[in-house]
Amino acid sequence: MTISLFITPAREFTIGEIAALIGAEPEPGAPADRVISNIATLDRAGPNDLVFFDETCDVDQLRVTHAAACLIAPGLGGTVPRQVTALRVGSPFIAFGEVARALFPESVRPSSLFEAKDLAAGAFVHPTARLESGVTVDPCAVIGPRAEVGAGTSVGPTAVIGPGVRIGRESMIGAGATIVHALLGDRVIVRAGARIGQDGIGYRHDTVSYRKIPQVGRVIIQDDAEIGAGSAIDRGAIGDTVVGEGTKIDSLVQIGQNVMIGRHCLIGPQSSIAGGVTLEDRVTLEAQGRITDRVTVGERATIGVSSRLMHNVPAGETWDGAPARPA
Amino acid sequence: MTISLFITPAREFTIGEIAALIGAEPEPGAPADRVISNIATLDRAGPNDLVFFDETCDVDQLRVTHAAACLIAPGLGGTVPRQVTALRVGSPFIAFGEVARALFPESVRPSSLFEAKDLAAGAFVHPTARLESGVTVDPCAVIGPRAEVGAGTSVGPTAVIGPGVRIGRESMIGAGATIVHALLGDRVIVRAGARIGQDGIGYRHDTVSYRKIPQVGRVIIQDDAEIGAGSAIDRGAIGDTVVGEGTKIDSLVQIGQNVMIGRHCLIGPQSSIAGGVTLEDRVTLEAQGRITDRVTVGERATIGVSSRLMHNVPAGETWDGAPARPA
Amino acid sequence: MTISLFITPAREFTIGEIAALIGAEPEPGAPADRVISNIATLDRAGPNDLVFFDETCDVDQLRVTHAAACLIAPGLGGTVPRQVTALRVGSPFIAFGEVARALFPESVRPSSLFEAKDLAAGAFVHPTARLESGVTVDPCAVIGPRAEVGAGTSVGPTAVIGPGVRIGRESMIGAGATIVHALLGDRVIVRAGARIGQDGIGYRHDTVSYRKIPQVGRVIIQDDAEIGAGSAIDRGAIGDTVVGEGTKIDSLVQIGQNVMIGRHCLIGPQSSIAGGVTLEDRVTLEAQGRITDRVTVGERATIGVSSRLMHNVPAGETWDGAPARPA
Repeated sequence: MTISLFITPAREFTIGEIAALIGAEPEPGAPADRVISNIATLDRAGPNDLVFFDETCDVDQLRVTHAAACLIAPGLGGTVPRQVTALRVGSPFIAFGEVARALFPESVRPSSLFEAKDLAAGAFVHPTARLESGVTVDPCAVIGPRAEVGAGTSVGPTAVIGPGVRIGRESMIGAGATIVHALLGDRVIVRAGARIGQDGIGYRHDTVSYRKIPQVGRVIIQDDAEIGAGSAIDRGAIGDTVVGEGTKIDSLVQIGQNVMIGRHCLIGPQSSIAGGVTLEDRVTLEAQGRITDRVTVGERATIGVSSRLMHNVPAGETWDGAPARPA
Repeated sequence: MTISLFITPAREFTIGEIAALIGAEPEPGAPADRVISNIATLDRAGPNDLVFFDETCDVDQLRVTHAAACLIAPGLGGTVPRQVTALRVGSPFIAFGEVARALFPESVRPSSLFEAKDLAAGAFVHPTARLESGVTVDPCAVIGPRAEVGAGTSVGPTAVIGPGVRIGRESMIGAGATIVHALLGDRVIVRAGARIGQDGIGYRHDTVSYRKIPQVGRVIIQDDAEIGAGSAIDRGAIGDTVVGEGTKIDSLVQIGQNVMIGRHCLIGPQSSIAGGVTLEDRVTLEAQGRITDRVTVGERATIGVSSRLMHNVPAGETWDGAPARPA
Repeated sequence: MTISLFITPAREFTIGEIAALIGAEPEPGAPADRVISNIATLDRAGPNDLVFFDETCDVDQLRVTHAAACLIAPGLGGTVPRQVTALRVGSPFIAFGEVARALFPESVRPSSLFEAKDLAAGAFVHPTARLESGVTVDPCAVIGPRAEVGAGTSVGPTAVIGPGVRIGRESMIGAGATIVHALLGDRVIVRAGARIGQDGIGYRHDTVSYRKIPQVGRVIIQDDAEIGAGSAIDRGAIGDTVVGEGTKIDSLVQIGQNVMIGRHCLIGPQSSIAGGVTLEDRVTLEAQGRITDRVTVGERATIGVSSRLMHNVPAGETWDGAPARPA
């Protein structure tokens, strides 16, 4: 077991407690009192660790793991070593996540990097900003005029919240992130260094004008959305740029003006979405993909790694390549 | 009409005033006294909004718009609803920008995110730095030794200006941007989190040496240039990296050592320009393009989305693909 | 010679001293007392500058350079002007780097951007953090609980070091960088705005679960590694993400969970490495490349510009293209 400097379990669990938590069937004679205090991968696990085994795992590593217990699907092959308790459960990875949340409940909740209560010394909150109770603001975070931040939200060190920005409850604003001209919902995660709401370039290639045009729109980020480290989301030129409920955006993604992203989409790292594009619900855009102007991608469609998409994609289809075509 | 928390018009205009401003010909009987207080898109417009219609817009949205007035080219088809005043003008989009600047003049001028006058509390300016009058510095911005900042420039919260850096007048340094070893002109816009002037890697693949080589060059950013959110521009190894006058660089762009970018270029998001490349004036590099070492791209040439360019491109040509070829 | 606002030589050298330093053979009658105070490129050099000439340089520029002296390989053609002293040396570029380090020794050492000694005013260091002697911390840098920073390390303005993070000696943390859940070695360089140790997205495309899974791993960055401006390295989901000794990562690179990068690799700008990938020692990944899940790239292999790699690559091979194939 790796001793972590960073995350410690809230408490230990017995194998019996874990079986009850996830509705698993321990083998007859399993040591129900044996203690689990951490999670691990098959090859790194020690005698107090829980592991899981599914079709993505290496069967050779299963055979030699030193874990206390292993979550494994009922029908799945693979030999669990004699000293490891097998816990049979339908979706081992999902059950593993459930145990992990029970062991480390703090790690999925907003919290101050500086372990501050309320406002840390060195936080700058404008007198006209309104913070509900239980908001933590770390040193050198800056919250501007008329901004509003909901209860339980954490604003990391050196994060910047611009004038009039509204952030919901239980949200997490990472260190060094900057947010302007934006409205964020509840339980939103903005990772370190994300850039939200800056004005787009605001020029058009089809004109000779290089005079700056006011960008008067906003960014709307709905509940439970996540924005990756260093990602940049421009505000709408006139209307809004929208990131739908539950959508997860990975690191270093670029999103242009007036993009509409539906709910529960997955946007891979370093992908890029041009101004005016629409993604419907549950779209997957894999890493480094590029979607060009005004395209619409239908519900549950998937766009492959490094694709360059220039046409509308019907719901449910998978497109791939540069230029992207139906796979 | 969307009520914005973020941008409010400096004053209202009548349709007559707008027609005079842009040199448009209102239809006979147009309600010249009707008031305009915002801009909008065709589908979102309300009774006090101005819209425009050109060949990029949806003719079905024009037919049902609720705007007060619509800028439209003289010869262009499309039915403007009876209650909407059509204002005929040669370049509707350019005229629309002009009205927008008149409505929201503050939004295209440098201003403090914290609404600070001069130095905000919590700004750190080295005693040897020199700031002209009318410079605003937001909380947790840091301006280093011997730096110089010109009149009317705004330095955003948590922005960092390194030793000896010079910034001209009426420039805008976004929140969290970092600038070292650089000289910036007037009216330059550096968006949030841009990284300017750090040393490049400074190793060469063709040598076995991994000893660090001093990078003694600079970054020169000329008047009216714009640098996108999160973009990274390395300083020259020996000479300078240059971004020419009026050039617009979008978000998350990477620019290597000693790149020479001419005037009025457009550099799309997430594109990448290797060390030693030259772009002449008015080049367009579209999103996610990559230009490899020492290539020269001629005046007014265009390089397509996601291209990988490995050869010199003559002036005026369009190249596309990976590897890029004449289109 | 360009007068630099940013870097000045520690002292001047004579041509004789330089010849001795690099073991070069000056021509008979060379002016050994002539003074060198800077380095330059062939076309920009003035009468006190040192230049080099090798097969990457332009022979026409050599003929007209105004440098004081030129490093050049013994067998290499090209006419050195009469007033320029030729210093013959086996590897001119490597010798040039050696002279540059002698002229500008400060530029390759960690130092405070604010020219602070120890803690600058406005630096926030948690009382439980432990800093060895000779650590400099710039204004608005934030060092969290239980963090440890080794002697001679410099923490730039607005950089954030999270709880429990350990950083070795003589390391350089750039302005605005954020580091959490990470252990860094000695002489590590983290450039401006790099994002190290944030949790990855932590969802799997093959499940319907969108409940957040604790990410309990770390980032390990070994001695002499360099992380580029704005690059983002996620911590391990369970185990660690590792960047090996001496590996150089360029700007805006994305590295997923549990990636294992060996020693002395070169990772080009804007490249992207998916979770679980392994790069063995001395791998080169060129700009904008993408390596997909669980691939292993063998020792000294090279992956070309903008490649999309989906298969294991044997040691020493060069692969290129999208999808990548042996070159």
